[in-house]
Order: sequence, then structure tokens, then C-alpha cells
Amino acid sequence: MSTICRIAVLGASGYTGAELVRLLYLHPNVKIVALTADRKAGSTMAETFPQFIGLELPPLVAIAELDWSGIDLVFCALPHATTQEVLKTVPAHVRIVDLSADFRLSDPAAYAYWYGHEHHALALQAEAVYGITEFARDAIAKARLVANPGCYTTCGQLPVVPLLEAGAIDPDEIVIDAKSGVTGAGRSLREANLYCEVTDGFHAYGVGHHRHMAELEQGFSAAAGRPVIPAFTPHLVPMSRGIFSTIYLKPTEGHDAKSLHDIIARRFAGEYFVKVLTFGSHPQTRHVKGTNFTFIGVSNDRRPGRAIVTAVLDNLVKGASGQAVQNMNCMLGLPEQTALEQLALFP
Amino acid sequence: MSTICRIAVLGASGYTGAELVRLLYLHPNVKIVALTADRKAGSTMAETFPQFIGLELPPLVAIAELDWSGIDLVFCALPHATTQEVLKTVPAHVRIVDLSADFRLSDPAAYAYWYGHEHHALALQAEAVYGITEFARDAIAKARLVANPGCYTTCGQLPVVPLLEAGAIDPDEIVIDAKSGVTGAGRSLREANLYCEVTDGFHAYGVGHHRHMAELEQGFSAAAGRPVIPAFTPHLVPMSRGIFSTIYLKPTEGHDAKSLHDIIARRFAGEYFVKVLTFGSHPQTRHVKGTNFTFIGVSNDRRPGRAIVTAVLDNLVKGASGQAVQNMNCMLGLPEQTALEQLALFP
Amino acid sequence: MSTICRIAVLGASGYTGAELVRLLYLHPNVKIVALTADRKAGSTMAETFPQFIGLELPPLVAIAELDWSGIDLVFCALPHATTQEVLKTVPAHVRIVDLSADFRLSDPAAYAYWYGHEHHALALQAEAVYGITEFARDAIAKARLVANPGCYTTCGQLPVVPLLEAGAIDPDEIVIDAKSGVTGAGRSLREANLYCEVTDGFHAYGVGHHRHMAELEQGFSAAAGRPVIPAFTPHLVPMSRGIFSTIYLKPTEGHDAKSLHDIIARRFAGEYFVKVLTFGSHPQTRHVKGTNFTFIGVSNDRRPGRAIVTAVLDNLVKGASGQAVQNMNCMLGLPEQTALEQLALFP
Amino acid sequence: MSTICRIAVLGASGYTGAELVRLLYLHPNVKIVALTADRKAGSTMAETFPQFIGLELPPLVAIAELDWSGIDLVFCALPHATTQEVLKTVPAHVRIVDLSADFRLSDPAAYAYWYGHEHHALALQAEAVYGITEFARDAIAKARLVANPGCYTTCGQLPVVPLLEAGAIDPDEIVIDAKSGVTGAGRSLREANLYCEVTDGFHAYGVGHHRHMAELEQGFSAAAGRPVIPAFTPHLVPMSRGIFSTIYLKPTEGHDAKSLHDIIARRFAGEYFVKVLTFGSHPQTRHVKGTNFTFIGVSNDRRPGRAIVTAVLDNLVKGASGQAVQNMNCMLGLPEQTALEQLALFP
Repeated sequence: MSTICRIAVLGASGYTGAELVRLLYLHPNVKIVALTADRKAGSTMAETFPQFIGLELPPLVAIAELDWSGIDLVFCALPHATTQEVLKTVPAHVRIVDLSADFRLSDPAAYAYWYGHEHHALALQAEAVYGITEFARDAIAKARLVANPGCYTTCGQLPVVPLLEAGAIDPDEIVIDAKSGVTGAGRSLREANLYCEVTDGFHAYGVGHHRHMAELEQGFSAAAGRPVIPAFTPHLVPMSRGIFSTIYLKPTEGHDAKSLHDIIARRFAGEYFVKVLTFGSHPQTRHVKGTNFTFIGVSNDRRPGRAIVTAVLDNLVKGASGQAVQNMNCMLGLPEQTALEQLALFP
Repeated sequence: MSTICRIAVLGASGYTGAELVRLLYLHPNVKIVALTADRKAGSTMAETFPQFIGLELPPLVAIAELDWSGIDLVFCALPHATTQEVLKTVPAHVRIVDLSADFRLSDPAAYAYWYGHEHHALALQAEAVYGITEFARDAIAKARLVANPGCYTTCGQLPVVPLLEAGAIDPDEIVIDAKSGVTGAGRSLREANLYCEVTDGFHAYGVGHHRHMAELEQGFSAAAGRPVIPAFTPHLVPMSRGIFSTIYLKPTEGHDAKSLHDIIARRFAGEYFVKVLTFGSHPQTRHVKGTNFTFIGVSNDRRPGRAIVTAVLDNLVKGASGQAVQNMNCMLGLPEQTALEQLALFP
Repeated sequence: MSTICRIAVLGASGYTGAELVRLLYLHPNVKIVALTADRKAGSTMAETFPQFIGLELPPLVAIAELDWSGIDLVFCALPHATTQEVLKTVPAHVRIVDLSADFRLSDPAAYAYWYGHEHHALALQAEAVYGITEFARDAIAKARLVANPGCYTTCGQLPVVPLLEAGAIDPDEIVIDAKSGVTGAGRSLREANLYCEVTDGFHAYGVGHHRHMAELEQGFSAAAGRPVIPAFTPHLVPMSRGIFSTIYLKPTEGHDAKSLHDIIARRFAGEYFVKVLTFGSHPQTRHVKGTNFTFIGVSNDRRPGRAIVTAVLDNLVKGASGQAVQNMNCMLGLPEQTALEQLALFP
Repeated sequence: MSTICRIAVLGASGYTGAELVRLLYLHPNVKIVALTADRKAGSTMAETFPQFIGLELPPLVAIAELDWSGIDLVFCALPHATTQEVLKTVPAHVRIVDLSADFRLSDPAAYAYWYGHEHHALALQAEAVYGITEFARDAIAKARLVANPGCYTTCGQLPVVPLLEAGAIDPDEIVIDAKSGVTGAGRSLREANLYCEVTDGFHAYGVGHHRHMAELEQGFSAAAGRPVIPAFTPHLVPMSRGIFSTIYLKPTEGHDAKSLHDIIARRFAGEYFVKVLTFGSHPQTRHVKGTNFTFIGVSNDRRPGRAIVTAVLDNLVKGASGQAVQNMNCMLGLPEQTALEQLALFP
């Protein structure tokens, strides 16, 4: 692409908004021309995130003030629910990557069940492409609206979907025990997100009922060709970034942990952002921190005939803003890794 | 008990040793009369752990220097393997609470399989009582040698053993996804224990093969009356103390998550140190930090007919030194909670 | 004291409130008979702080619902400013330990300068005793209202006041570089207190202007017998508890670092809660975590003729609720260490 | 430069070595052709630092195995002392950026005083250029051997040297209270670096005597034109990366905090990597994490006639490997920011 794509970021004062700025500012093919943050309109990005002091960035404005005529593509990092109302008003020439959960579920009834109200933008929902890049890049390339997947669900679907598609595991025996860093909760002011409530301890939340289940069930059911309900338990780790999924699986007749490893390794053999470790090795979240990579490991379970799969990603990058940029690259016909080649910040 | 029990702590320079001193120093019925630390012999406990500055404590000496005649009961917090050689030499009048793994497995063949060599103190092993206090207090009261259980296994056995005994869960469908703080690794100098290797990240270790499995299998098999192998995966959390177990279970015909909750609640109704939360509530490790308590929660899984149980404890207290003191109290005929009534240090 | 003192805690849902409950629940001479938390009235302490599940504690009520006739002594852990209005209404038979800053400054003009408004309870202010226990225990014993000192100021005054009283340091050359854990900011919902804003980083705040300066200046000026203004910079450390003060001093003619050490050591020779390390040794916050102790160290500065003093305490204990209980013990004629003998929780 | 510079990294298995690889791997003008790690020779970089899995990197070899003929420039990240012996053997055609302390002190007597032995490579020492890039870029451009400065000293010299050169502060009244993340201690196996010894607490070390003082005194004395000894106290913060310096200064006649701010701002007006905040604003370490930036703030002290300056940098980047790459860019005639433009990873 020879021209520069003009970018707006809605909801720039949140963590995924800041992460988009971090990644897009150095992207050679785009220019950030608008940043919105309704409650902080009138201030600068550097006041909200001082790491950006001295950069050439547009001021924070209210969404209503946007001049859409100068915008080619918008990243929407708004809270769930408000997103629907806002995106309905975006002019047709503007392509959209939405980081909220509002357009991830294709079934309006599923949306209504999990979110407690009818969807307010059904027409848009119908055209949205669910965007795990590795699984849907052709559709993403042509999409006007990409629903960027959730962090937990990306970390669960990348390793499991290929196994379900291959018929290599029992769809009724999937346990995903997931652990997330605290940025997953965003920058919202809730007591549960205070430093002293999170540090030096560990807990589960949403046990038996968490909205990300809907997305997992949608992806797994599509892959298996029949309804699939996995066990899924999210936990909060005292760390800023990272998701770790420990996945307990029951290979089907003729399969074992080793063959599951082979299926996953073959499925991602050509992928830049997915690395499958040698059999029996397992990743750490810190090895992908700040990057768009997903690392996957597979082992035998000690229980005969079972397997354990682990996967890690950075919830703000491959789990949110990085995959959003990867999807944008895909939409613009750019190499997917453009501006996403940073190596992990460890230690 | 009217007289004071004279206590020695072997291996006082490690974390479980320090924790024993923290708990025993204020115990009204005992007096610490000897502390050993072979590599630090000649120095003081306050030099090794400055929080003890100003306390009246015996100097650190080598084990060989001990005068056993003045000792009634010894806590052994030595590394695995060396323990066997040392404990063989303890005179018969001295009762023993051993915090190592050396005497936890009652089957010599199982010991040899998991530890790679024959047991060197088979006679002692034969008389050792495996000491989850709530499950074995009568035997503990009379024991000369109590094998104090592991942290992971205490946190797994307390909630699951009652369910296996009641026949309420399928023994072949137990998944224990366990997460531990870093004190579980002790004070040993390994790269994996360095601050920068642990902080701000998360990982699994020993996937598919970890020595604590042997202890879990022993306890579960005894409870079920037949061999049981659970899935068990330990993970390292960037926190000092605490174990969190997320346990996925399949209730048997006639049972569901609610009835599992009832069984557990009834089993621990009279117990001071085990608290079962209301159905659907789940604990945090921070709520038991520094205490000898175990908190247990039970929920429905979203998968029909399955249940999720969570449990937390402080690995240095109920998972090691606290249960050791509880066992000592039991051996001495004292109220079990003596010197163990502290409330959690949170925040 | 043969009777039990009946205690109310106002503001029990904050961190200092919870810490008071932790310490008082096991105190042999008191009973908590009332807990207030206006916004959480109607719920239980265990709902707000699950570590208290199963304890016998009164429900959380609004202050207006209190029956003062059954209360002998009240701990007030309310936010600054509201405290004045509330304490004016406390009946005369109830003694008060106030943990806010509202009654710490004895000069109404100083209060008005630092807090931006006239004091609303001048009569009470006039009778309040400023309560660093080690410096004022006779007055505290007789006081009706004790103004419990701030955390930073306790950690600054304990080592420096004896030196000013002795004329051993230049009052114009005092630099206190102070570092605090995050509990110092309480449980209030501010963006700056979110986990992700605090972890894995370090910063100063209130540089050149912080309200605790007023308290330091008051204490130092009284000790020196003339106005003293120290440099004081607070910083936020990614830890829950602890204050560390690094203090740069200029000994007066005839004094050096060693003689400063001697003065401090002599001053606290008989004190249970203040420990002065050997010359050249320095403390860590973790060695006093969860305790009411203060540790102090003294070294030569490399600059000729200068000295460096360090001091640590737990801001929630000696810096707040622990000193409040120490003061209560003093007011009730009990041994000061009653219910405050716990050893540090380390690691 | 049209050709590719061939790079070796000595000591690649340490943290500064890994950081060099992170920065150099994506550098368009260099190629890493050799990595050494004597104790891990024979293994791969990805085995030592799994974040590098899948990258094209040479294997880890012993230094003795190096073929220097194919190397143009070497980064030496070896421990202090061994460095001298190794660098003496480097062929003359190879340029050197040394990250150890071995060549930082130009006075052999000062080296002998602080390190306890004579320098073993005096000829090399005589030609070494001390490399704070902003202060010495002309000499660096021509140097064969650049002594890369220490992290603490870079963070102290950047803000203070311009003030000393301007005669704007009293050289006898400099207090630098410095705080560092744990990566500053490297990956060495010392008890003090274990997670449980560092997390959730704070302490000072090397009080009154720390080797970085020598470097500060050298730089400050040169800037002032007479001997200068500052107070300098290093502290350890429970975080991985970052240095925060709080600097207490006494402006000379005719100067005040505001004029100090002006001097610093003017001095760094054209610098890419040094950002001076608006007067009264102060930086956080997290705002430069992973970057080569230094942020500086200046305020009035509450003490009349005094000033407080703060400065932050990432000790592994501007404090070590980043400044090393900046110096290499300078030596190669490349734009200094090449491969160093990443924005901070926050949150």
C-alpha cells in the first residue's frame, strides 16, 4: 500500500487504547489522526499516559466531535454495550476493528442470553467477521467490520479448534483452567482492581458463569459441528499482562497427546505469531510479554489416555490490540507482522 | 499439660524453619531449646532472619552438636533424602514431626518409584503416621513420628477425600489445577526462584509428572478403596504464600454440586481450621495468609452434571509449619488451635 | 483491668478498620461491640473482608445507629474532615483514639493552612493528645482523645526527635526520603491506586508539598525548640505494607554518626517496640510486616561529617492501627504490648 | 553505513546480554554473528531465554571458541574483573562496547581503591572513553573501546552534571537517594535476589559505601572542576526494571529550582532520549520501561532555597544495553535512535 491509512482510536484513555497507540505510532503505513476519550476530552494523551510525552499525537476529543471524512479506519476500544450505539453512526467508508465483545456473538439469541438485553445493532452484527486472524484471514481481508476476539477465547481457541476440527478430542471433556493478568480488567475504578486487593494473592472469579464462555462455545461448536460446552474457569494473577490456559483433554480413539501435538504443530507451521514448543515443553506468559505471539505446549497427562495442553499470550497484544493491528494489516493487504515484530520484554 | 515441652527445630534457616519459630515462640506450652542449620552453624537466627532480632532464641548449631537429652520433640525441616539418615539417629524418647516428603508414602515401592532410590529408614517409615490432622488425629495423638503432609496435597485432599469416601464423585474424573506461591520452593538458590524469573508472569511446571502426585494418589486411593489417579498440574504464582486448587469433578449418579457441598460442609462442621463457604462462593489465598485455615468453595460447572470445587491455604502454615504445630498440639494433648489463632494478614 | 472494655470501630470497612479488628479480636481485655461503615451498613464484616468469615463480630451499621451507652472507647478510622463532625457528637463518657489527621495539629492556623479550611471542632482539638506512645505515654494514659500519628511522621519522628532534643544535629539540614506501601492510600477508588498503575514501577508524589510535612514540622520544631522545616519526599513502592525512611543528617560540632547511634539507642533502650540495630546495619520493611515494631539503623555517610539514618515500620500497624491499640492499652493501664506481640510475617 | 556490522555478544546468558539481543536482533544495520556464555556453551539462546524461540541466532559458545576475524564489534557483558583479562585478547580490528565497570574509572588509583586490586589492563583503560552518549558523543564516535556507564550513575549524572558545569548548585550539598529494580543485580544466584527475599518489601543496601559512588564522584568532580562527594544511597524496589533518583540540591546564589530546571531543559533540548518534564512534574519508572529514554523533573523543595530533582530510566536499556546500542550507533555513524525507538510497555 503506497498511501497512508488514517486511523482513529475510540476510547484511547483505556489500556487497550494506549496499547493501540504504542503499536500504531511506529507503524510505517498508518497515521493516527484522531483519539477519543469522552470523559477526558480536552486533555492530551500524554496527560493520560505520560509514556507518550513528546510524541506527535492528536488531542483527546469526544466522539461527537470527530470529523469522519478524514478517517479511513477506526479502532473501537469502548466499553461493552455503548459500542453498538456508536458504531451504528460510523459512515460507510470507514472500516472498523471493534475490540469490545458487542459483535463477537453471531447469534442474536446468544447475545441476549449472555448480556441480558437485545442487541441494538443487528444489521452490523450480521456483517461482522469474528477475527482470530489465523482462522479467518480471507474473510477479515474483505470485512468492513471485524469483531476482535476476547483474550481468554483467543488463548483457548488457538490450541483447541484445530483438535476439534480434526475430531481428535472428545468435545464433552474439555477443561480450560485460565489465568489472566490484571490489565484484562481494564482501567475501571473497581475495588477488586486496587493494588492491595490483587497483589500477593490469587483467586478465581466468574466460576461456572463468565461471558467469555459464550465465545468459546460458539467457536468450539463451529469447529466440532455440534454443540460444545467446555468447563472454563478464569483466575486473576498478580501480574499486569498475560494469559495462561491449562487445558485438560481426552483424545479420541486412535489419538494421544503426541498426535494432538502433531495436529497443532502442523496447523500453525506457517504462522508467524503462533509457536508450538517441542512435545513436553510448556511456555511462560513472560516469554510473550509485549508481543503478538502465542506459545503452545503439549504433554501427556499422568491419567492414561489424557493430554494436557498449555497456551500463553499477552492479553493486551494478541488478546486485544495486537491482534487488532494484525487484523488491520490483513484488511489493508499489508504483511501481517508489520509493526508487530517486537520481541518480548523479559526480564 | 503443666510442663513445658522442649523443642528442637532441624533446618531452622529455611522458610519452614523460620515459620516454625514464628509460631512456636509465642506458644505457651513449649520452649525452643535448639535450632540447627548445618551451613550456618555458629551464627544466630536473627542473622539469618532479621525479623527475630532481640528474641531469646538458641544459637544455630550443627545437628551433630545437639544434646538430645534435653529435647522432647523435634521438628525436622530438612531437605528430602537427608531426612532419613538424620531421623534414624534420633533417640527413642524424642517425638518427631517431619516436614519433609521422606515419610509420607507408606508403600516402599511407591517411594522408590517417585524418588529414584530405596528408602533408607524402612523401620521408621513403617511407624510413621501421615498427618492431615482433621483426618487422623487419633493416630497422630499416639504417634512417635508424624509425616507432615505436603502443601499441594493438603489442599487437594481436604476437599476431595470426603467426596471419595462418600462415593459421591467419579474417581477417574478428577482434575486438580493447583497454583502455589513461591515459598513452596524454599530458600534454595535456583535460577528459577530469582525475583526476575518469577515476578509479573505465570507458568506451569512438572506438567504430567510431579512428586506430589504420589501423595495425592495414596490418599485418594485409600479414600476410594481402589486405585485413583487424578490429573494434577502445579503452577507458580508471583506471590510469596498461598495455594489455590481449582478442582473439576464429576458427581456420581444421584449427586450434584449442591450435594457435594453438603458432604464437605458436614464433614468439616466441627473443625476449627476448615471453613466451607456458602454454595457458589469461592475463596482467595489472601484471606488465609499467615493463618492455619483452609477455605473451601463449591459451584456448579456450566457443563451439565459437573462440579467445581476450590480450596485455599497458606502453604507455609496449614501446608507446612502450621499443620506441624497443629499435629504437635494433638500429640501433646493440647487444644489444636493453641498458638495458631492469628487472623489473616490482609491487606 | 478486670472488666472488659467495650469497643466501637468507626469506619470498619477501610484497611485501618480491618487492621483494628485483626488486632482487637484476640485482645484479652476488650470486646468489639460495634462496627460502623455508612456505605456498607446492613452487611457484615466478613462480606467486606472475607478473612473474618466465621468470627463473632457485630454487623456493620451506620454511625447514626450507634448506641453509645454500651461503648467505652471508640477507634475512629474515618476519612479526614468528616471526623471532626462525628467526634463532636461522641458522648463524654467515651474515650477516643482517632486515626485521622484531624486532631494531629495543635495549632489551628497550621491546620487551616494545610487543610484549606477552619477546624470545625476547636474545643476537641485543644484537648487532643498527639500520640506517639514512646514520647507521650503519660499524657496518653490520661487523655480522653488521642490523635494517633500518621505513618510517615511516626517513621520520621521516632529516630529524629531524640537527636533534635539532644542538639546533636543541625535542624536546617534534615532530608527525609520516605517510601510507602500502597495501603497507605487506603481502599479508596482512585486510578492511581489500581494494581496496574502501581505494580512493577516506582514514583514520588507530593514532591515539595505533602500534608504530612505539617506533622513533621510540628514534632521537629517542638523537639528543637525553634522552627524546623525538613525536606520530605514521599514515594510509592509496589508493596502492600511498610514505610522506609532514609534520613540524611548533619551532626553538630562534637557529634558524628556513631554518637547519633548512641543517642538513639539509649533513648529506646527500654522500649518494647523500637529496636535499634548495630551501627552500620539497616532494616528492611519486610522484617516488621504485620508487627508494631520500628527498626532503626545508623551509618556514616561517605560525605565527611554526615550521617545516614534509616527506619522502618508497618504503616498499618505502628503507623496506624497497632499504635492505636498501643495507645488504648496505655489509656486502659494495660501492658502496652498486649495483643501486639505477633512476629513478622516473612517471607 | 551500507555494509552490515557483524556483532558478537560476550556473556549473552545474563540479563544485559538478553537485552542486547532483544535490541540488536531487529537493528537494520547489524547482524549478531556470535554469542558466548562459557557455562552454557553448547546450548542455544532460546534454551536460556525462551522468548527467543524460533529466532535465527548463533549458538552459545565459549569465548575461547570465537573466530574474531568475522567480528567487527563486540559487546562485552561479562562480570566485573574477568572483563579485563578477556578484553586484552580482543584483536585490534574489533571495536568494543564494554558494559562492565572495569573501564569506567580513568584513575588507576581510584580503581584499585574501590575494587581492591590493581587494574590488569592499564593500556586499554587509558584509551577507554566513558560513554554517556549525550555528554561524549564525539569521543565515542572515534573510540575503539567505550566504557558503558553504570545504571545508577547515568541516572545521577544526566540531571546533575549540567548543573555542576553551570555552577548552579553547591557541590558539597548533593544527596542522591536512588532506587533500583532487581534486574540491576543480574541473574546471579544470591539469596538476596530470590523472589521471596525481594517481593513486597523495601530496603537500602551499600549504605555509605557502594562502588557506583566512584563513578559519580569522577563525573561530578570533572563537571565541577574540583573534588565532589555526593551522598548516595541505593535501594532495592520490588520491580524488575527501572531506576528512580530523588536528588536534593542547594542552588548557588542567584539560582533557584526554576533556574535549575531551565538549565537542564536547555542542555537536553535537542536530545532524542532525554525528556525534561514541565516544572513541578515528576516521572515514574513505568513510563520509560523497555525504552532508552530518561525523564527528568524539577520542583521547589519546601525548605527555602533548595530544589528537588527526580530522574528515571530503565536500568537494562538507558542504564545498560540500550545506551550500549546508542553508543554503537554513534561509533558506526548511524542515527543514534536506530533500533531504539520502542515506546514504553505500560501497563
